[in-house]
Amino acid sequence: MPQSPVADDLHPELPESLQDIVENQHLHTALEWLETHQPHIIADELARMDNVTAGIAFRLLDKDRALTVFEELEPVDQQAILEGLRDHTFRDLVEGMDPDDRARMLREAPAKVAKRVLAGLSTHERRMTAALLGYPEGSVGRYMTPEVVALSQDLTVEQALRTVREKGAHAETVYTLPVVDRSRRLTGIVELRELVLSPPDAMVSTLVVTRPTFARAADSAEQAARLMRETNDLNLPVVDSEDRLVGLLTFDDADELIEAADTEDMARQSGSAPWAGHYMAAGVWQLARYRALWLSLLLVAATLTVSVTRAFEGTLEQVAALAMFIPMLIGAGGNAGAQAATACVRAMAVGEVRGSDLLKVIWRECRVGVVLGGLLAVLGVGVAVAFVGAKVAVVVGVTLVLICAWAATIGGTMPLLAKRLRIDPAVVSAPMVTTLVDATGLVIYFVTAKLVLGV
Amino acid sequence: MPQSPVADDLHPELPESLQDIVENQHLHTALEWLETHQPHIIADELARMDNVTAGIAFRLLDKDRALTVFEELEPVDQQAILEGLRDHTFRDLVEGMDPDDRARMLREAPAKVAKRVLAGLSTHERRMTAALLGYPEGSVGRYMTPEVVALSQDLTVEQALRTVREKGAHAETVYTLPVVDRSRRLTGIVELRELVLSPPDAMVSTLVVTRPTFARAADSAEQAARLMRETNDLNLPVVDSEDRLVGLLTFDDADELIEAADTEDMARQSGSAPWAGHYMAAGVWQLARYRALWLSLLLVAATLTVSVTRAFEGTLEQVAALAMFIPMLIGAGGNAGAQAATACVRAMAVGEVRGSDLLKVIWRECRVGVVLGGLLAVLGVGVAVAFVGAKVAVVVGVTLVLICAWAATIGGTMPLLAKRLRIDPAVVSAPMVTTLVDATGLVIYFVTAKLVLGV
Repeated sequence: MPQSPVADDLHPELPESLQDIVENQHLHTALEWLETHQPHIIADELARMDNVTAGIAFRLLDKDRALTVFEELEPVDQQAILEGLRDHTFRDLVEGMDPDDRARMLREAPAKVAKRVLAGLSTHERRMTAALLGYPEGSVGRYMTPEVVALSQDLTVEQALRTVREKGAHAETVYTLPVVDRSRRLTGIVELRELVLSPPDAMVSTLVVTRPTFARAADSAEQAARLMRETNDLNLPVVDSEDRLVGLLTFDDADELIEAADTEDMARQSGSAPWAGHYMAAGVWQLARYRALWLSLLLVAATLTVSVTRAFEGTLEQVAALAMFIPMLIGAGGNAGAQAATACVRAMAVGEVRGSDLLKVIWRECRVGVVLGGLLAVLGVGVAVAFVGAKVAVVVGVTLVLICAWAATIGGTMPLLAKRLRIDPAVVSAPMVTTLVDATGLVIYFVTAKLVLGV
Repeated sequence: MPQSPVADDLHPELPESLQDIVENQHLHTALEWLETHQPHIIADELARMDNVTAGIAFRLLDKDRALTVFEELEPVDQQAILEGLRDHTFRDLVEGMDPDDRARMLREAPAKVAKRVLAGLSTHERRMTAALLGYPEGSVGRYMTPEVVALSQDLTVEQALRTVREKGAHAETVYTLPVVDRSRRLTGIVELRELVLSPPDAMVSTLVVTRPTFARAADSAEQAARLMRETNDLNLPVVDSEDRLVGLLTFDDADELIEAADTEDMARQSGSAPWAGHYMAAGVWQLARYRALWLSLLLVAATLTVSVTRAFEGTLEQVAALAMFIPMLIGAGGNAGAQAATACVRAMAVGEVRGSDLLKVIWRECRVGVVLGGLLAVLGVGVAVAFVGAKVAVVVGVTLVLICAWAATIGGTMPLLAKRLRIDPAVVSAPMVTTLVDATGLVIYFVTAKLVLGV
């Protein structure tokens, strides 16, 4: 048995990249490379390559593997590959995809590609795909798989297993079997596992989990996925507004939803627009575009600091030593604020903090800020005494306590306020908190200086 | 059918909290509350309550629900509950847990609790738990479930299903059935779904996926979980160093591993130590402790900015207007650096960027920085002209381009360098990059000023 794929690294360094092999026209080596690597590794390599070379490499795959690899790709990469394919290969590939994967790709495809994809489908597949695309952006309906085997609860285990055998061949998953009444209303679920472990003449009704967790097709897909993770459900039944079963949200789609949401949260936390593509495949202009807006807004907001400094120009001229500590003080405030903001955004994402906790969060972050500020004051006063003497050191110490308390409070509160205003809490980024704390922190610093030094 | 649990919010605002109900001794209301809410909601409420009240509420649950709720709790909360239980309830609860959940709780329990837990177990359960605890911290062995139904490949489908029925009752999952040879070496896997969908007299050997993805018990648990997510495998077979099957890593454990790793990455990104507990249950001192170390280190590092400003005191005294732009310039640099660092840390976590990409990342982030710096320079020069005139504005513009290029390069490079030094890339936090850019950015600013203004 070969080396475990996890042993060294999830992504081992390859001796020669597929890009190099294909570019140098070593077709035999390329074929061998493609045969000896697993689909997800191949997909990774294709995602890193330029479109033309990736297209050539993709066409070297045999038909079955091509579909597996294709389904592992991100929608942007799938489109790039599709554009280079001839009609019959194109049709085979698109027809072979699961309806939910196909809908996912079409969501992001330009109209021309979408039209060609839908035209190539059989009526049955086209109808299913169109139904998924009819649900609103970001809703469970867009991500669910519509091919579900549903059972009636007056079957025996043997009859139920026969139904699964007859209808299950095309269903993406049969591990969770929704139970429905005559009008296809969801009344419970049965796990395939329970059917297999039970005697053939047992009644399905004895195995049904009634009041199952479920979602409506119009619900938020991300929240449904997080709910699945909390309840450890493998698949979540999806119903329409009249409680009729319309599909199943599967664990792998839920995983993808959560991974995408977390990547988005992290990007927002650093003040970037979320970017769904592959980092190494993105061009310089693309990367810059995703970061430019926030960076510009923050710079404009930072002109507040210029105004504040100018307003206290007199103080600064009388005690020039004050300028020395500006970066350190606003840096400490920014860091304390960023810590609090990140902790709260994550706690809200995983459901630990709710909107009604606002006052509690303010009170606890304020105290945490005082504790941390006190600690930093001890260090800061030491530094300031060494550089400029006791008087300014007192200003530095007092400012650190006030600035940390203020920054932690602001950092912890802003995500909750954002939620009340129905804005994604993750938009409250660390840079946003930092910039806000920069300007207000300077006011705290200069006012403290005026009071302590009497200038 | 009731309202979908996702519809409004994953965590609906409850009219009265369980804490209030229990504290006010409304036992009937409490019992009713516990009966009408789902286990994961109950676990959420318990996690938010103080230990004494949570202990009282927990004892009100009936036996079966108690176990389900208990398994939904985080290890810290589990220990708190256990400490308040009498011996026989304690034993029932611990014996009823799955071996991997139990091992997970014991990993973090103080020795006294661990001893009491192990003492209460039957020999069989104790042996399984001890085996899991024998694997190194963070390894797959610690997280896998050891109760697996393995098949031999010369069975028919009917025989295989009978084996599953006989041995499967205690196994946590039977959806992935590893196939082993006579010495229990892993040779492939069969999905339960395939068995159910096939005719009873078919041979298992025709359904086996050979060369399955697998992990070794000593491999990194997080990497194994990320591999499962890439390959969309429900369960991952785990083998020992001699390729013998020892367990399965299940999808729900993989989800937990990834959620914990992502929470940890986010905490580190904001310069906090990772904290596994519930935000609302943590005390002020606890929260402060997790943030104190980094905040102090960063403050000490920030004294560099004091030194730099002092070294250029002469320049600053001659052109006092320069002080006004310090917060804005180092803020912009810090933001550009944080964006790059976050993008790279995430790209590395999901496997898009590898160690060998170092030079490529440096080159692309440097160019992205120049593009963004150019954009900010246009805005910054405008502001500076309005406030202080053209000469200083030129200094501000040039500094913005240089500082952004430098910050993006540093931000993108540091996570990769950390990986080469075998440090977790996520430790390269935005605050760390910001602090580094603060000091070096000031040098860039003052040197530019000296050159442009000739002072």
